[in-house]
Amino acid sequence: MRVTFGLAAILVIALLTTTTWQRQPVPAFGFAAASAHAEDARERFFLAVPSADRIRQTHRVLAGEPHLAGSPRDQQLAGYIRDRFAAAGLEAIETSTHDVLLPWPEETTVEMVAPRAWRASMREEPVDGNPPPTSDSSESSLPYNAYSASGDVTARVVYAGSGNAEDYTRLEAMGIDVRGAIVLVRYAVPYSYRGFTVLTAQQRGVAGILIYSDPADDGAAKGPAYPYGPWGPDRRIQRGSVAFDFLVPGDPLTPGWASTKDAPRVTRDQALSLPRIMSAPLSAVDARVLLEAIGGPEAPAAWRGALPVTYRVGGGPLLVHMRVRSDDRVRPIWTVTGLIRGSEQPDQLVIVGNHRDAWTYGGSDPSSGTAAQLEMVEAFGQLRRSGWRPRRTILFASWDAEEFSLISSTEWGEEHEAMLQANAVAYLNVDSGVSGRVLNASAVPALNQTLTEIAQRVKDPAAHIPVAAAFRDTVTSGVLPEDASHDLVGNRFGSGSDYSVFLNFLGVPVADLSFRGPYGVYHSLYDNADWLERIGDPGFRYHVALVQLWGLLTLRLADADVLPLDYRPYAGRLREFLDEASATWPVPADFDQARTAATALGEAAERLNTERHEALDRADPAVRAQLDRRLMRAERAFLDPDGLPGRPWYRHAIFAPQYSYAPEVLPAVVEAIRTGDPGRVSAALDRLTLAIRRAVDALDGR
Amino acid sequence: MRVTFGLAAILVIALLTTTTWQRQPVPAFGFAAASAHAEDARERFFLAVPSADRIRQTHRVLAGEPHLAGSPRDQQLAGYIRDRFAAAGLEAIETSTHDVLLPWPEETTVEMVAPRAWRASMREEPVDGNPPPTSDSSESSLPYNAYSASGDVTARVVYAGSGNAEDYTRLEAMGIDVRGAIVLVRYAVPYSYRGFTVLTAQQRGVAGILIYSDPADDGAAKGPAYPYGPWGPDRRIQRGSVAFDFLVPGDPLTPGWASTKDAPRVTRDQALSLPRIMSAPLSAVDARVLLEAIGGPEAPAAWRGALPVTYRVGGGPLLVHMRVRSDDRVRPIWTVTGLIRGSEQPDQLVIVGNHRDAWTYGGSDPSSGTAAQLEMVEAFGQLRRSGWRPRRTILFASWDAEEFSLISSTEWGEEHEAMLQANAVAYLNVDSGVSGRVLNASAVPALNQTLTEIAQRVKDPAAHIPVAAAFRDTVTSGVLPEDASHDLVGNRFGSGSDYSVFLNFLGVPVADLSFRGPYGVYHSLYDNADWLERIGDPGFRYHVALVQLWGLLTLRLADADVLPLDYRPYAGRLREFLDEASATWPVPADFDQARTAATALGEAAERLNTERHEALDRADPAVRAQLDRRLMRAERAFLDPDGLPGRPWYRHAIFAPQYSYAPEVLPAVVEAIRTGDPGRVSAALDRLTLAIRRAVDALDGR
Repeated sequence: MRVTFGLAAILVIALLTTTTWQRQPVPAFGFAAASAHAEDARERFFLAVPSADRIRQTHRVLAGEPHLAGSPRDQQLAGYIRDRFAAAGLEAIETSTHDVLLPWPEETTVEMVAPRAWRASMREEPVDGNPPPTSDSSESSLPYNAYSASGDVTARVVYAGSGNAEDYTRLEAMGIDVRGAIVLVRYAVPYSYRGFTVLTAQQRGVAGILIYSDPADDGAAKGPAYPYGPWGPDRRIQRGSVAFDFLVPGDPLTPGWASTKDAPRVTRDQALSLPRIMSAPLSAVDARVLLEAIGGPEAPAAWRGALPVTYRVGGGPLLVHMRVRSDDRVRPIWTVTGLIRGSEQPDQLVIVGNHRDAWTYGGSDPSSGTAAQLEMVEAFGQLRRSGWRPRRTILFASWDAEEFSLISSTEWGEEHEAMLQANAVAYLNVDSGVSGRVLNASAVPALNQTLTEIAQRVKDPAAHIPVAAAFRDTVTSGVLPEDASHDLVGNRFGSGSDYSVFLNFLGVPVADLSFRGPYGVYHSLYDNADWLERIGDPGFRYHVALVQLWGLLTLRLADADVLPLDYRPYAGRLREFLDEASATWPVPADFDQARTAATALGEAAERLNTERHEALDRADPAVRAQLDRRLMRAERAFLDPDGLPGRPWYRHAIFAPQYSYAPEVLPAVVEAIRTGDPGRVSAALDRLTLAIRRAVDALDGR
Repeated sequence: MRVTFGLAAILVIALLTTTTWQRQPVPAFGFAAASAHAEDARERFFLAVPSADRIRQTHRVLAGEPHLAGSPRDQQLAGYIRDRFAAAGLEAIETSTHDVLLPWPEETTVEMVAPRAWRASMREEPVDGNPPPTSDSSESSLPYNAYSASGDVTARVVYAGSGNAEDYTRLEAMGIDVRGAIVLVRYAVPYSYRGFTVLTAQQRGVAGILIYSDPADDGAAKGPAYPYGPWGPDRRIQRGSVAFDFLVPGDPLTPGWASTKDAPRVTRDQALSLPRIMSAPLSAVDARVLLEAIGGPEAPAAWRGALPVTYRVGGGPLLVHMRVRSDDRVRPIWTVTGLIRGSEQPDQLVIVGNHRDAWTYGGSDPSSGTAAQLEMVEAFGQLRRSGWRPRRTILFASWDAEEFSLISSTEWGEEHEAMLQANAVAYLNVDSGVSGRVLNASAVPALNQTLTEIAQRVKDPAAHIPVAAAFRDTVTSGVLPEDASHDLVGNRFGSGSDYSVFLNFLGVPVADLSFRGPYGVYHSLYDNADWLERIGDPGFRYHVALVQLWGLLTLRLADADVLPLDYRPYAGRLREFLDEASATWPVPADFDQARTAATALGEAAERLNTERHEALDRADPAVRAQLDRRLMRAERAFLDPDGLPGRPWYRHAIFAPQYSYAPEVLPAVVEAIRTGDPGRVSAALDRLTLAIRRAVDALDGR
C-alpha cells in the first residue's frame, strides 16, 4: 500500500512535470507536431516584446508634424523608417522612388456672391481658444480634394443630400435642375467614397461640388467632439482624394504599369481616374452659412442633418463663386522596403505593409499603424537576434501616397508583378491601426482559420479575455459600428487601402487589421497625436494588441511547415455569394455550373487538407514544398486575365470595390445582373466558373 | 334550460352594462365613494384639455425674448400672464409690486495682465457661424453674478477645484495661499449653489472668484453639446445669483419682512445675504486661457476636468485684473395672482406657482414651467365653464425675481404670513418644468400618497405606461440622473425654488414637479426656445404630462372631501432621519425621546386616517371640516418659532437647505452634531421632540 502510493505519487509528479515543463502545445494550423513547441516559444517571446511606451515615442515622431505625400517631412520620415529598419537588423533595405501625379492645392475659394458677400474660411481653426501644439495649420495641409479639376465658376447652389444617384432622381422629381449648378452634399457615414460622389455629380452635368461633414454623421450630434471626445468638431474639414480609383488606382498617368523613370505616361485628359469637375470639402460651420441662405423647398427628411437650420434644396437668391486651382505637378514619392530572408524557402514572400503619408498629422490614419509596424519590426529584430530566422522571407514595406490613390503600393506591385505572382504568399496590411477598441479583421477566406487562432491567443487589453471573445461580446452587446462585419474575420473586400494591388491585380491572399472606434476627425487637422493619445487609445494598449496580432499572423505564415491557407471557407463563401446573386436573377438555374464548381472547390480543399495533415506527420520537405506551391496558385487562379468589364486593372473574379470603398462580391456577375442582359450574365457566370475551376486545378496540383 | 340560459344572459348583460356605463371608480385618497364618479369624470375632462400646440405657442411668447426680472419685457410678460388669467376666467386677478434690491451689471472685466495681455470675452457668442435667431445677446442678458460685490483688483490666480472647504484645505497642504488672490473654480455637478462657493471663498480671504463651467461637468465631454444636443457648448456662461439665500432668501434689504413701499430697509452693509467679494462666471473657452497660463504644481486628480490642458493650481507668472461694477439699484418686480374661489371652503387655499423671470430667454428655466402653468390655467378655465367650481379656493401665482433670491414669492409670503398660516392647504410649485423625460417629484411626506396615485393615472408620453411605471423603469435601468431621488416622490427638501417661503417660513405642505434630463445650457444664453423645442422636449409631450400631473394634484387637493394629507409616511421618514443622525453621534440613546415622538406621530396619523375613513362614509361636513383643520395644523406644528441657530428665517424643524441648494434633514440636530457639543445636540433634540409632539397634538385635534 505504502509502496503503491509512493509509485502513484511518482507517476503523478512525473506527469505534472511533463505537463508543466514540457507541455506539448496543440500545433497551430500548418505546423507539424514536432514544430509546435518551438513555434509556441517564439510566439511567447514575440508577444512579450511590444512596449506601449516605445510605440508612443515612435508615434510622436511620426505624427509630430504634417507629412503629406511628397513633402520634405514625408521624405524625412522615409529616412526615419529606413533607419529603424536598419537598427532592427532588416536586410536589403531599399528606398525606391516613383514619380507620380501628386497635385497640391494652390487655391480653394468658396464665396457667397448673393444674397450677401461672405467667404468660406477653408481653415480648420483650433477648436477653441488657443491652438493645441499639434493642431497648427501648415501650407502643405490646406484642405482640398486631390485631383479635383481646376476651374472658376459662379452658380446657384443645390443641396443634394448625400449625392447618390437616388438623391439626384429625387431632385429631378422635385423639378430641380442641377446642370451647371454647384451641388452641396454631405458625407454619408459609413463612408461612401467621395470620388464616386464626384463621378455621380459629374455624370449629371454639375459645375462643381462641395462636400461637407454634417454633425449628424460623425460629428458633435453623435457624441463629445474633439477635443472632448472622438467625434468631429464643427470646424473639421474632411479633405481627401477624389480620384476614381475604383476604375484604376495608382498614378493616374500610368494606369496598369509602374511609374518608373522612363515609363510612358498618358496625358491628363486621357487619364481614366481623373475627375472633370471641381470639388472641395467644407466644414459644417461653412456649410451652415450656405444652407441658411439656400432657400427653396424643404429637403426630404432623410437629407436633414443636425445643423440648426431648415434644410432646403435650393431655389433662393444664393449665388456662390467657386474657384479651385491645383498645381498638378508630378512629384517623387518614396517606398521603403526591408526584409528578413527565409532559411528554407527564401523565394516565398510574406509581405507586411502600411502607408506612411498622411493628409495632415495622421494621428490615427496612418501613424497609429506606422508606429505599430515599427514596433513589429523591433520585435522581429529581437527574435532574429535570439538566433531565429524564418522559413520564408518576410518583406516589410512603408508605402507612400496611399491617400492620393493607393499610389506607391500600386506602382511597386505593378513594377514587381511577375516576381510577386510567382512568390507572394500573402500581403498583411494595416492602415489606420487604432481608432478604438473594436477588432476589425478582414481577410480572404483562406486566412480565416489562422486569423481565428491568433485572435484566440492575443488578449484584449481592456477585457483581459482573448480578442476573439471580446469581439463576440461586442457583437452580442450590439455596440458594433454600423458598417462592421459581424464575423470575427470579415471576408468581403472592397478597396480603400494598400491591399488592392495584391488582391485585385496580383491575386495574393490579403488580410487587413485594425482596432476601430468612433473617429470623427478622419482626414482632418484634428486627427493628431493628442486625439490618439487621449481619446483613440489612452495608454496605447490596443496598439500593443495590434502588434501582437499582426506579428503572430506574419510569424505563422513565415514559419509554418505547410502554408496555413484553407480553401474550404472560400468554397462556403462562394456558395453564399452565389445564393445572394442568384436571388436577384429570374433564372437561378443559370448559376448551377458555378455552384457545382464551388462545391468542387470545397472538395479539392478537403483533399488538400488531408494531404497537408499527412505531410505534417511525415517530414518530407519536397512534399511540403509542393503543397505550398499548390496553395500559392489557388488565389492567383481567381484572377481573370481580362479583368472586369470596363476596368481591366481589377482582375479578381470574387472581390472588387463597388464604385466606392464598399465591397462587391462576384463583381462581374452582379454588374451584369444590373444590366438585365441574360447574355452578359451568362458570360460573366462562365468566366466565374472557369476561375473557380482553375482554383480547383491549382489545389489539386493539376 | 333555455329559460335559465336567457336569465343568465340578461344578468351578464346587466353586469356588463353596470361596469361599462356606471363603473364606480375606486375613490381617490380623500374622496368619499359618493364623490368618486364625479371626480373621475372631472379628471378625465381635465386630462383631455392640454394641447402640445398651444403650449408651444405660449412658450414662444414667453421665451421669444430675454426677460430678466425687473426688465420691460418681464413687465410685459406679467401683463400677458394677467391677460391669460383673465381669458381663462380667473377671479380677483392682481399684480402686486415689490421694490427690491435688483442689481444689474455695468461691467465685468476679467483680463490677463501677465504673462501677456488678453481679455475674457464675457460674451456667449453663437455656437458656430451665424447667430440663430433666438441667441442674440442683449444688454439685459450680460453674464454676471447678481449681488457680487463691486471692486477692482489685480492679483495672481489660484485654481481651487470646485471651491469647497476640502479644496481649500488641500491647497493649504500644498502650501498655496489664497489670501488676496483671485480664485478660479469650476461648477460642480450636481450643482452646489454658487452663492455658497462665494461664501466659502470669502471666508478664506480671497479677493475675487471666477466660476467656470468645465466641459467635463455638464458640457461637451458628456455628450453632444448645443446646438446638437442637450449639453453646454464651450462658450456658455452659467450666470446666476450669489446671494446667501441659504441664510435668508428674498430681498436682501428686508430680511424676514415684505418689501412693501414703506417697509424699513437695512443698509447694504447690514444685509446678511450679500457677499463681500467680487465674483464672475466664465465660459470654458475663457477659463482655458487662464488655466493654460496658471502654472505651478499639477492639480489633484479630482480637480482635473476635460479641457485639453494640464490642470495646475497656480504659481506661474499669471496676473489677472478683475473689475466688477453693478448698479445696485432697487427696482420694482411684479407678482401676478388670480384665483378660482372655492364653493365649500373658500378660505382654504391651494396655491399653484411658477416664476416668470429668466436670466436670458429661459427656454426651460422657467418658461417651460410657465407655459405649463398657463396651459393648466386654460384647462381649469374650461372645467370652470363646464359648471364646476372647486370645494376649496385655488390661487395661481406668477412669481418674479426668483433667479435673484426667490424674491417675489418670499416677499409675497412674508406679506401674507398670517393669512397663509391660517388658510394655506398646500403650495404646488413648478420651476424649470421640462428639460427631459425623467419625472422629478419632490414633496413633504404628507403628499406621498396623492402624488403616487396621480403618477399612476398620468401616462408617460414616450413609454405609454403610467409615469410611475416609467419612473421605476428609469431607476432599474440605472439611467437616473446622479442627484435624483430613487423614490417616486423624493422627500428631502433643500432650497432653490419658490417653495422655500411656504415650507421653511410658513410650514405649508409643498410639492415640486418637473421632467428632467441632461441640461448643460442651464442659466446660459443657449437655454432658449430652440433648445427646448428640438432637444429638451420635441413635440412638447412632456409638457402635456406635466400639466396633467400638476393639474390633477391641484384638483385633488382642491376637491377632496377631506384633505388628502397622510402623516404616516412623515413618521416613517422621521425615524429614518433620526437613525441617520444618531449613527453619527456617540450616544444614540440621546435620540430616544425624539424617536418616541416620531412613533407617536405615526400612531396619531393612523388614528386620524381611521377617523377620515369614517368621515368619508358619513357625509357630515362639520366632521370633515374639523379633520381638515387638524391636518392643516400638522405641518405648521413643525415650525420652530425661533428658527434654526444663526438663520431664524428657516423655521421648519425637519427640512432646510444646507448652505447650498442641497437638502438638510433635521438641520438643527445635524448642525449641532457637527459642533460636537453635547449640550447643543441635546437642546436641538429637545426642540425637535417638541415640534413632533406639537404635530401629534395637531393631528389629534388637541
